[in-house]
Amino acid sequence: MFKMKFAIMGHGVVGSGTAQLFMRNHDKIEMAAGESMCLKYILDIKDFPELDYSDLFIKDFSIIESDPEISVVVETIGGTNAAYEYVSRCLKAGKGVVTSNKELISTRGTELLGYAKQSGAMLKFEASVGGGVPLLKPINQCLASNQFVSIYGILNGTTNFILTKMESENMSFEDALDMAKRLGYAELNPSADVDGHDCARKISILSGLAFKKHPHPDTIPTIGIRQITLDDIKLARACGGCMKLIGRAKPVGDGVSASAQPMIVDNSNQLSSVSDVFNGIIVEGDATGNVMFYGKGAGKFPTASAVLSDIMDCVREKQSQRNIAWEDTDSLAPDEERYQFLVKVKGEDEKKLPALGEIQRITAENGAIGFVVGPFTKAELNEKLNNLAIIATIFPILK
Amino acid sequence: MFKMKFAIMGHGVVGSGTAQLFMRNHDKIEMAAGESMCLKYILDIKDFPELDYSDLFIKDFSIIESDPEISVVVETIGGTNAAYEYVSRCLKAGKGVVTSNKELISTRGTELLGYAKQSGAMLKFEASVGGGVPLLKPINQCLASNQFVSIYGILNGTTNFILTKMESENMSFEDALDMAKRLGYAELNPSADVDGHDCARKISILSGLAFKKHPHPDTIPTIGIRQITLDDIKLARACGGCMKLIGRAKPVGDGVSASAQPMIVDNSNQLSSVSDVFNGIIVEGDATGNVMFYGKGAGKFPTASAVLSDIMDCVREKQSQRNIAWEDTDSLAPDEERYQFLVKVKGEDEKKLPALGEIQRITAENGAIGFVVGPFTKAELNEKLNNLAIIATIFPILK
Repeated sequence: MFKMKFAIMGHGVVGSGTAQLFMRNHDKIEMAAGESMCLKYILDIKDFPELDYSDLFIKDFSIIESDPEISVVVETIGGTNAAYEYVSRCLKAGKGVVTSNKELISTRGTELLGYAKQSGAMLKFEASVGGGVPLLKPINQCLASNQFVSIYGILNGTTNFILTKMESENMSFEDALDMAKRLGYAELNPSADVDGHDCARKISILSGLAFKKHPHPDTIPTIGIRQITLDDIKLARACGGCMKLIGRAKPVGDGVSASAQPMIVDNSNQLSSVSDVFNGIIVEGDATGNVMFYGKGAGKFPTASAVLSDIMDCVREKQSQRNIAWEDTDSLAPDEERYQFLVKVKGEDEKKLPALGEIQRITAENGAIGFVVGPFTKAELNEKLNNLAIIATIFPILK
Repeated sequence: MFKMKFAIMGHGVVGSGTAQLFMRNHDKIEMAAGESMCLKYILDIKDFPELDYSDLFIKDFSIIESDPEISVVVETIGGTNAAYEYVSRCLKAGKGVVTSNKELISTRGTELLGYAKQSGAMLKFEASVGGGVPLLKPINQCLASNQFVSIYGILNGTTNFILTKMESENMSFEDALDMAKRLGYAELNPSADVDGHDCARKISILSGLAFKKHPHPDTIPTIGIRQITLDDIKLARACGGCMKLIGRAKPVGDGVSASAQPMIVDNSNQLSSVSDVFNGIIVEGDATGNVMFYGKGAGKFPTASAVLSDIMDCVREKQSQRNIAWEDTDSLAPDEERYQFLVKVKGEDEKKLPALGEIQRITAENGAIGFVVGPFTKAELNEKLNNLAIIATIFPILK
């Protein structure tokens, strides 16, 4: 009987989770895929002699590349060095590739999709956004009869955990970050998460998927959460919302506008109830209205679930290979949406605020003071503040 | 160039929405499906001379049945009479069928899936549960590497609207139902919704999908919301939750336990924030943990979006036809889960309650009084109440 054979490159958190989940739920997975499946190799520089599947480990990538039996290769190495080289070589060799690597897809996805197209191989990356939450396939297939109006959400569990702890337990950013590190939610160098880069990478992928316009993450205006204070958190609450790091993209003219930034999410918005390490992503379709997907955006087995879903798709779709197609977009359109903003100013600057039009003074439970202004576009507000020589911290309010 | 041709049977809310959404987003739909598509016939007993697609209407089903060009037929007639006959004849003729008809699928789905298997035709019903929310395909494909632990949710928008109005605006059940009728959310005869039958049908379908065990909806213990009073709503709030009509299924031994009943959903549960006409469905997987899908569970264009998603799937998957497979399950397993319960008793019966063990007295803002007991299984609690000759109203509390 024919067996589809695959390899996993990288036996870290996601790679080991994929191998173990495949073995644990093997029968169910084969039944859903409609074919026998076999994990033939695991590529890793380390040995894992204690594992009962230690005989699968190899150290030489060319064994995978040159084995005609291997039709699908999973990449969970991370980064863009070896991962890029191996993925591009697998695709050129006509092997399907499944990856959880958001950095790779968001920065070099267009090029890799090109190699896939040339060789007729499949390139799938459900696990790169939203971890175990089904998202890319539902957007690309289930919701495909919609024109998408916008897509936005809480795309990074680490920062959502930190913001939740700051709000629910009055912790400072530093203390909440330390707690996230202790719990294994944040890495020793947490920059990719707390400075918003992870969020920017994910919204770059979602933008490519929903609008077929893919902005490079380096071009996406990105603000992290390092500078968020407990005052900001309390003011957000006093505004009737809560502080969330939001990745957002929407089509503007022929292009796309995208951002990754802290926003005050109004309590009426479903995202306001997404807390701790959970992710929530809202897809706004012209037919469906808002649809939300919610779940664990990271972690060993949730992410492995998404990887295995892509592997099964490679099996199911081998007669009708159809990759996602998107084009890079060079320059982002400015965000033309008008928001209300929470504005924090100091000292004398407060007196200049009435020039912004109607303003609402907000006092938080701890006495922190802010002002709600607008609606303005972000550019309009920044220009007004500049003209009045007001130095302020601003947060858009997302209804 | 080859064009896939399809027909729509029934030009009501969903049928007309499907035709109109197909025409509106035609280019995007064809691109996503990877093939040209053409709506050839619409079957309806009425004429629609005012429509710009009035030339598509026919009144004779046999034209569709005998036209070899028609490869997919959409059924949005509703009910189980003509709908059953036409769907079974289409499947026997080898034509793919897409339906939004939850009554048809929940009561005769097994038989129809059998016809589909015999002829190699596809039978798809994404629109039958959750309206525009992608649910069946994500469960069946994206989450397929999981063993499902349970599936539950708010599956009926009409009753959720009524319960939301009772809670947020202090309306009685009757007034909220009248409002739902005026807004077009409830039918003149609202029994299918308010008596829980619609919810039972949907959880029957979800059970078949997730656990491959399909209980007939008539066998599912079903309690509607007619008897819910404002006191109950206030007590739910005082318990730290809110009253929701919940459909729920989980595997028990070789069978499945399923129910459709009002439950008090704890505020810590993501479903507690699902209000108005929205649906929210939680799928608990062994790998992913809880994943929630949220959106409009009904309505013309949301449901049409799901129908079109299935039509596109028929196009995409024509080389690898794979239907959902499930088996009927004759007798439901009892619900062995232990819940805390809110118990409402009258008069002297209150004094007998301490025999149930530790009880917590709850006073709602309007003075209504209830007692939290347990955890017990529902059967255990009913037996204890019987033994003590206590007449009570009980609501399980869902954490």
